[in-house]
Amino acid sequence: MGALHEGHISLVRQAARENDHVFVSVYVNPTQFGVNEDLDSYPKTWDSDMEKLDRLDQELASTAGSGRITAIFAPTSKTMYPTLPPSSDIPGEGSFVTITPLANLLEGASRPVFFRGVATVCTKLFNIVQPERVYFGQKDVQQTVIIRRMVQDFHIPVDVRIGPTEREADGLALSSRNVYLGNRRRQVGLVLSRALRAAEQQYKAGKRNRNDILWPAHDLANNKIREQDEVPPPERANFEVDYISLADPETLEEVGVVDEKKGAILSGAIKMKPIEEPQEGEVTGLGGGIVPVRLIDNIVLEPRS
Amino acid sequence: MGALHEGHISLVRQAARENDHVFVSVYVNPTQFGVNEDLDSYPKTWDSDMEKLDRLDQELASTAGSGRITAIFAPTSKTMYPTLPPSSDIPGEGSFVTITPLANLLEGASRPVFFRGVATVCTKLFNIVQPERVYFGQKDVQQTVIIRRMVQDFHIPVDVRIGPTEREADGLALSSRNVYLGNRRRQVGLVLSRALRAAEQQYKAGKRNRNDILWPAHDLANNKIREQDEVPPPERANFEVDYISLADPETLEEVGVVDEKKGAILSGAIKMKPIEEPQEGEVTGLGGGIVPVRLIDNIVLEPRS
Repeated sequence: MGALHEGHISLVRQAARENDHVFVSVYVNPTQFGVNEDLDSYPKTWDSDMEKLDRLDQELASTAGSGRITAIFAPTSKTMYPTLPPSSDIPGEGSFVTITPLANLLEGASRPVFFRGVATVCTKLFNIVQPERVYFGQKDVQQTVIIRRMVQDFHIPVDVRIGPTEREADGLALSSRNVYLGNRRRQVGLVLSRALRAAEQQYKAGKRNRNDILWPAHDLANNKIREQDEVPPPERANFEVDYISLADPETLEEVGVVDEKKGAILSGAIKMKPIEEPQEGEVTGLGGGIVPVRLIDNIVLEPRS
Repeated sequence: MGALHEGHISLVRQAARENDHVFVSVYVNPTQFGVNEDLDSYPKTWDSDMEKLDRLDQELASTAGSGRITAIFAPTSKTMYPTLPPSSDIPGEGSFVTITPLANLLEGASRPVFFRGVATVCTKLFNIVQPERVYFGQKDVQQTVIIRRMVQDFHIPVDVRIGPTEREADGLALSSRNVYLGNRRRQVGLVLSRALRAAEQQYKAGKRNRNDILWPAHDLANNKIREQDEVPPPERANFEVDYISLADPETLEEVGVVDEKKGAILSGAIKMKPIEEPQEGEVTGLGGGIVPVRLIDNIVLEPRS
C-alpha cells in the first residue's frame, strides 16, 4: 500500500535473497477501507517510495548472489476492479473473496470489510503476477493467517513466506501509520509492545493458562491508562485497548490453555485518541495530533516439543 | 458434476478438437446445493460416466488431429474443502468467492448459495489444473456469464469457451435432471423451449421492445397451464413458471428494449410438479414421478450490426 518503511524494505531484501526477480506491488486498495475509514488520509508517498526502492535496488545490484527488483506493479483501480466500482459496503456488490470466520475475528471485528478487501486484492495480484513466492510481514499477523488459509483452501500454487516485524530501538513496531503519532502518543503507545512482551515472558517461564499469561499485559495497559488520567491534558496521551488476544495460530480462536505442540499468537490493538491541548513547538505528527491512530502488534509463542 | 449426457460429451469433444490434453473434472460440489436442495438425490452415476468417457476417448484416439482425455479429476470433498466442512448455509463459514449482483439474479433468486458454490469450486479447479482453456455449456447461461465475470475481475489467466446447448430432437435441452421427468412431464416440459423459441422469432422478426418479444412466450406457457387444468389428474402434468427473462448479456439485468449492438439473453425456468395418480405401466421417470423437477433453458439473441 505504499508509504514504505524499513519493514517493507526488509521484505524486499528477503525476497531478493531467495529469488532472482522481485515484483513489488504498490497499490492502496480501496476495498479494504470501510466507508468511514481513512482511505483519503492514508499516506500517499509515491515519489519517496520510488526513491527508496531505487536505492534498495542499487544495494541489491552490488550484493553478490542477490536478486533484483524486476518490476514495480502500481495498477489503477480500473485495472484491479474492471467491471464494477470497488465497493466498501457490507454486503457490497462486486467480485469478492471471503475467508470466514477468520476475517471476522480480532482486526475484523472492528473493520468488517478489511480482510474481504485484502483477500480479494491478493487473489488478483497473485493471478496477474503468478509469483512462485509471496512475502508478507509478521506485523499483520491476522493477514498472514488469512493469506495462508486462502492459499490452502483455494489451492493457489504459491509459497507464502513471512518476514519478521521490524521495530524501532525501543520496541515500537514499524507502521505506515506511525507518522501520525507525534512524540507524546508515540511514547505512550510503547505500552502495546511492552504488554505483549510481558505476556510472552510468562509463556517462556512455563505458564500455559490464559490468565497466567495475559494478566501482566492487562495490568501494564490498565496502569498506563490510569497513569495518563493523572497527567495534565497538555502532556497526556489517552488510549483505549481494543483487544489483547491469545489465540490459536491457525483458527485465531481464543485459547484457554496453550497447546505446547501448536504454540499461540499473542496480539493486541490499542487506539490512541487525539491529543489534547498541543503545546507550542510540540512534535504532534502528521495531521497535528488530531487523527486517532490504531496500533497493532503481535508476538508468536512458538511451539515447544 | 457427473451424470454425464451428450451435452457433457460434446464439450469434451470440443475441448479435444482445440487442445492436446483434456482434463475432465467429475465432482458433485456440495456448496452449490442449498440446505434443503437435492444434493442427496442428485444422480450419481460413476460407473456409467467412466464407461462413457472411456468410449469417448477411444473415439478421440481414432480421430486424426484430436486431443485425448489425459486425466479425470475426481477429488474428494476433503481435497476441495481442506480446512472447514463445506457449508451450504447463508452466510455460511468458509472460504468463498462471491460474484454479486450477478449471483443473486434469475437462478440465484431461488438458489441463493448456488453461484457462490460454483464460483468457489471453479476457482479451486482452475488453480489445481491450471488449464489454458475451460469449457462450459451454454445450457447454464448464467453460470457462463458469472465465470466470464470472475475470470475478468480476478484476472484469471484462462480462456473461457462455451459449447452449444445439446437438445433432444423435439427441442428439450439435455440435463442430468431429465431422468426424473418421465413421459408425462417430459411432454409438457417442452413448453419451455417452445416458449423461448416463440420469443426468439419475435426478435428475428425485428421486434426490440420487451413486451413485443416476450408476449408469445408468456402466452404459450399460460395456455399450457390452463390446458393442463382441464386434463384429468391421471394424465396431466402441472407446472409453474419461475421466470421468463430478457436480460442484458453481461449484467443479466432485465432490459426494456434490446440494444441491437449487445443483443440479449432470453432465458426461462419452470418447475414441474410431482405427477398425480400414476397409471399402471406409466413411465414415471427415476423416483416414480414424485420428485419436483426444475427445468431451465435459454437462447442467446445475437447482436445485429
